[in-house]
Amino acid sequence: MTAPVDPPALTTTPFPNSEKQYLSGALHPQVRVPVRAIHQSATLEMVGSLTRRTSNPTVLVPDTSGPYTDPAVSIDPRRGLPHARPWLATDPCLETQTERFSARLDGAGPMPFPALPLPRRARTGQAITQMQAALRGEITPEMEFVALRENLRQADEFTLTHQHPGQSFGAAIPRVITPEFVRSEVARGRAVIPANINHPELEPTIIGRNFRVKINANLGTSIVTSSIEEEVEKMVWATRWGADTVMDLSTGKYIHQTREWIVRGSPVPIGTVPIYQALEKVSGVAEDLTWEVYRDTLIEQAEQGVDYFTVHAGVRLAHIPLSARRRTGIVSRGGSILAKWCLAHHRENFLYTHFADICEIMAAYDVTFSLGDGLRPGSIEDANDAAQFAELETLGELTRIAWDQGVQTMIEGPGHVPMQLIRENMTRQLEVCQEAPFYTLGPLTTDIAPGYDHITSAIGAAQIAWYGTAMLCYVTPKEHLGLPDRQDVRDGVIAYRIAAHAADLAKGHPGAQARDNALSQARFEFRWEDQFNLALDPEKARELHDESLPADAAKTAHFCSMCGPHFCSMKLSHDLRAGDILAGLEEKAREFREGGSQIYLDRPASEPEEVGA
Amino acid sequence: MTAPVDPPALTTTPFPNSEKQYLSGALHPQVRVPVRAIHQSATLEMVGSLTRRTSNPTVLVPDTSGPYTDPAVSIDPRRGLPHARPWLATDPCLETQTERFSARLDGAGPMPFPALPLPRRARTGQAITQMQAALRGEITPEMEFVALRENLRQADEFTLTHQHPGQSFGAAIPRVITPEFVRSEVARGRAVIPANINHPELEPTIIGRNFRVKINANLGTSIVTSSIEEEVEKMVWATRWGADTVMDLSTGKYIHQTREWIVRGSPVPIGTVPIYQALEKVSGVAEDLTWEVYRDTLIEQAEQGVDYFTVHAGVRLAHIPLSARRRTGIVSRGGSILAKWCLAHHRENFLYTHFADICEIMAAYDVTFSLGDGLRPGSIEDANDAAQFAELETLGELTRIAWDQGVQTMIEGPGHVPMQLIRENMTRQLEVCQEAPFYTLGPLTTDIAPGYDHITSAIGAAQIAWYGTAMLCYVTPKEHLGLPDRQDVRDGVIAYRIAAHAADLAKGHPGAQARDNALSQARFEFRWEDQFNLALDPEKARELHDESLPADAAKTAHFCSMCGPHFCSMKLSHDLRAGDILAGLEEKAREFREGGSQIYLDRPASEPEEVGA
Repeated sequence: MTAPVDPPALTTTPFPNSEKQYLSGALHPQVRVPVRAIHQSATLEMVGSLTRRTSNPTVLVPDTSGPYTDPAVSIDPRRGLPHARPWLATDPCLETQTERFSARLDGAGPMPFPALPLPRRARTGQAITQMQAALRGEITPEMEFVALRENLRQADEFTLTHQHPGQSFGAAIPRVITPEFVRSEVARGRAVIPANINHPELEPTIIGRNFRVKINANLGTSIVTSSIEEEVEKMVWATRWGADTVMDLSTGKYIHQTREWIVRGSPVPIGTVPIYQALEKVSGVAEDLTWEVYRDTLIEQAEQGVDYFTVHAGVRLAHIPLSARRRTGIVSRGGSILAKWCLAHHRENFLYTHFADICEIMAAYDVTFSLGDGLRPGSIEDANDAAQFAELETLGELTRIAWDQGVQTMIEGPGHVPMQLIRENMTRQLEVCQEAPFYTLGPLTTDIAPGYDHITSAIGAAQIAWYGTAMLCYVTPKEHLGLPDRQDVRDGVIAYRIAAHAADLAKGHPGAQARDNALSQARFEFRWEDQFNLALDPEKARELHDESLPADAAKTAHFCSMCGPHFCSMKLSHDLRAGDILAGLEEKAREFREGGSQIYLDRPASEPEEVGA
Repeated sequence: MTAPVDPPALTTTPFPNSEKQYLSGALHPQVRVPVRAIHQSATLEMVGSLTRRTSNPTVLVPDTSGPYTDPAVSIDPRRGLPHARPWLATDPCLETQTERFSARLDGAGPMPFPALPLPRRARTGQAITQMQAALRGEITPEMEFVALRENLRQADEFTLTHQHPGQSFGAAIPRVITPEFVRSEVARGRAVIPANINHPELEPTIIGRNFRVKINANLGTSIVTSSIEEEVEKMVWATRWGADTVMDLSTGKYIHQTREWIVRGSPVPIGTVPIYQALEKVSGVAEDLTWEVYRDTLIEQAEQGVDYFTVHAGVRLAHIPLSARRRTGIVSRGGSILAKWCLAHHRENFLYTHFADICEIMAAYDVTFSLGDGLRPGSIEDANDAAQFAELETLGELTRIAWDQGVQTMIEGPGHVPMQLIRENMTRQLEVCQEAPFYTLGPLTTDIAPGYDHITSAIGAAQIAWYGTAMLCYVTPKEHLGLPDRQDVRDGVIAYRIAAHAADLAKGHPGAQARDNALSQARFEFRWEDQFNLALDPEKARELHDESLPADAAKTAHFCSMCGPHFCSMKLSHDLRAGDILAGLEEKAREFREGGSQIYLDRPASEPEEVGA
């Protein structure tokens, strides 16, 4: 890798037949919320010798892809994205530092970010987190942003299409999300808006059980493979396919520099696990970790604009023996690092003992907690064991402390859990952590399919999200086997978008079923292009269709290669529909009236009628 | 395609480090049940300067791949498989016909099967179905076969490894499956053993809620694509990866001939939908179908050895208008064909009116019913609607008639169903159809992901199987888009093996968790080869691992490319385990005793201890 550096090659093509639209704030005019509008073709029907043309509505869907898919915006990764949160620059509660605390690290590596912004933090005495604002009764621009984003439209335009009532297990999902509803959820800690004041490029999103289920994609270098450019491209790629947040889990070289490029170019919240970089600073020797090294790392990362930190403060010295007889021990990187430190020093986890200090730093930048599940089960056998739930109790205790200092908090969860044990996880977490948003990794519902763990875990993720989990951390086909590449990232993101949407439907999230209805209608009417364009992955749908019927004419054909023209049930259904059924009913009605309107008639002697019973 | 024909190229390599073993019948010595034994390498641990070597047990897993993976058997597809049911040849209750009813069809096509067996049927007055035998108190060879197959071992060798208790929603799964238990389940209709007397190559299997969840793979030509050789290879391929049954849904040319090659070469039950071939005989004009054409088709297919027929006898004239306003109409091929016939003739479905005649034919060969769900929902919006449940009521009525004539019966189910509506399907079916086995297609839990419907449906399939569904019909990535190829078949089979196994774990099926435990242990001990070999798809697991760490040395490495050697949590866990934890506990215990065994000590003045709260 040599400098000066060409910007990474990024995928920026807009989605097919889609238009990026923006919704404007009413309370906060600078708020501009992206949504994707998928246009449909018209339905053509023969009516006698005429063709009737019925237009089909545009379908609005969530859009996490950022300005990359806006043809009106030209992006240079060396300059970072445009600021979706311009109000931060003039916020009087914030002060700009004269230099970066991490200046030494900024230059360390092959690819320094050219246009480093100066960091900001809360002025002394100012309470600047979203939670603190919410508790004061304020509706911040971020709150209005996410309200519009959840509705996908201005509040007064909402119409609920055909949708099955949901079973939300006690969640309280309103029909229209208002900024005031957002404020109230954030105030009570039941939702978080991860939005570091140093991440002005962010298009904010909300994570909580009363909102659409969100998904996270992981990326990051390891010592074995990958590069900064690859990871930036993965971030753009992951958000293109639908990741609501991205975690940078780099453990290789140049962690700090890699992260700068990612945050400056990310339209979604970025999460990290600061203990990884702290460990790199002590040359990989867990026992050499100190509070001071960790504290500095928090500040460096908060200055860059990281929106949430995974902190394994629940890995308590007393809990570690509970994991001694596990089938797969401690599978969390952070958890195993901290456990090693605890035992080496025979002391309580310094993240736990310094928790109030951590809160103070995070509150100054509005970094959100993701309280780590260092003792999560890494095998079916270890599911719901004493180690796991002991940690959960501590996380509940820490949640209260974090809230007292105004720090937004979510709780991480498992792991590997067979289906019959999933519900208990949700029930306990809601109670112990007072409905703080739950953020699970899957869970995987069986261990026997490495190579397919995006599927073993999508099965569990859909269920735990239905029960109330607010965000799902994706799992790719590479889980347990190696670092994911671009294809794995896409497979993982789509599998998790499926799980999240299945949960939204099951919860009865208002409007969620609109996309299913539109796609099924397009399918039934053989509007193939519309069916593809409405799909989560239009390219894959089109590609699989074209494997056996590539010609353009096949896109108007009333069949596909599964059954061919004679056997296509949808084609036959069309033949059945209006004409046959209604005509048949009308004829029978006429026959009835003409026959004297008798309900019972004598059976003709010549025609015995066999019946089934 | 020209004659004479080379046999199709078939995949016959044994699975890695696996051995095909056979369990012998005690009641019926001719019974030889295949199981796959996966051998593991030893665990090596350093104890001081010595290496301790602990052997790991062989893991037995179900094996649907037939003699193809037995290196001791050489297969010529032109002769068909060896007979796993040799007792049929000497069964005095059966009589051999002098010629085939379908002789005319046997020769029609490019690839006539060279070694056509003469068909057999029940002697007049003999009641030869598995259900009739069970009701007489007999334990047939097939019943003993499937009992051994469900246990994967002789009954007296069973040990239950660490396993979470399940939640089986009232199913009654015994710890050891005995032949007597099988008989009683078949007698009461709660399980079926699809085993046509003309399919002696079959290795029987049992389908019912008190047994392992089974999966079906579909194959078959369509007019647009595919050939006989490709479909035979797909059958071998599908059973290799784990399909318990295969349905031949061919709608193209040479349906009869294609099916002969498939049945003669299939170790698993074969299902068909006879209305497709009947429709071909009337040149694709649904209105021209007659009972006579259909009846002849049933006999022709029963003679070939088809083990189960999908019969859409529940598509009643009165139900069809209930589908008029659906989002996606009637999506079942058979359902739409019959609906068209009903409306064209203004008469009741002839499959319903002739149901007793159908039963009589099927009973003579022991063909099992799969009562078709012609009115299943093909979109989320249509789920659980009046049309769907009206048909289910009829299927319940028909089940009783079938049982009265001794015909084994299973019930087909949906379709597209959002998660919150899945449970109702199971509850209703158990009640209306008196616990006859349920056999669902998915269900898909959302419509928005064509290209990934193996995943949208694995999510629903796992849940409905947990609730009691006995067999799951797979869905491939090609669903809604085209005819599946080999890769699609593999993806679909693995996705459904995952869903079925996740359900077995959730139900607490005895011994199901053994494979998960073994794989996780291998993973934790970095026995990479064992981890791959125990996986559902060893090749894929190895391939993904090797994408970033291909060298053989990496297969003994205590890390993978996800985290590298310094960050691997499993490696760190090992470092933690025996030495550190136990040593730490011992040291603390010594300190306690030496300090006078005081529980409370005075705090040293110089060392303030901060705590989290």
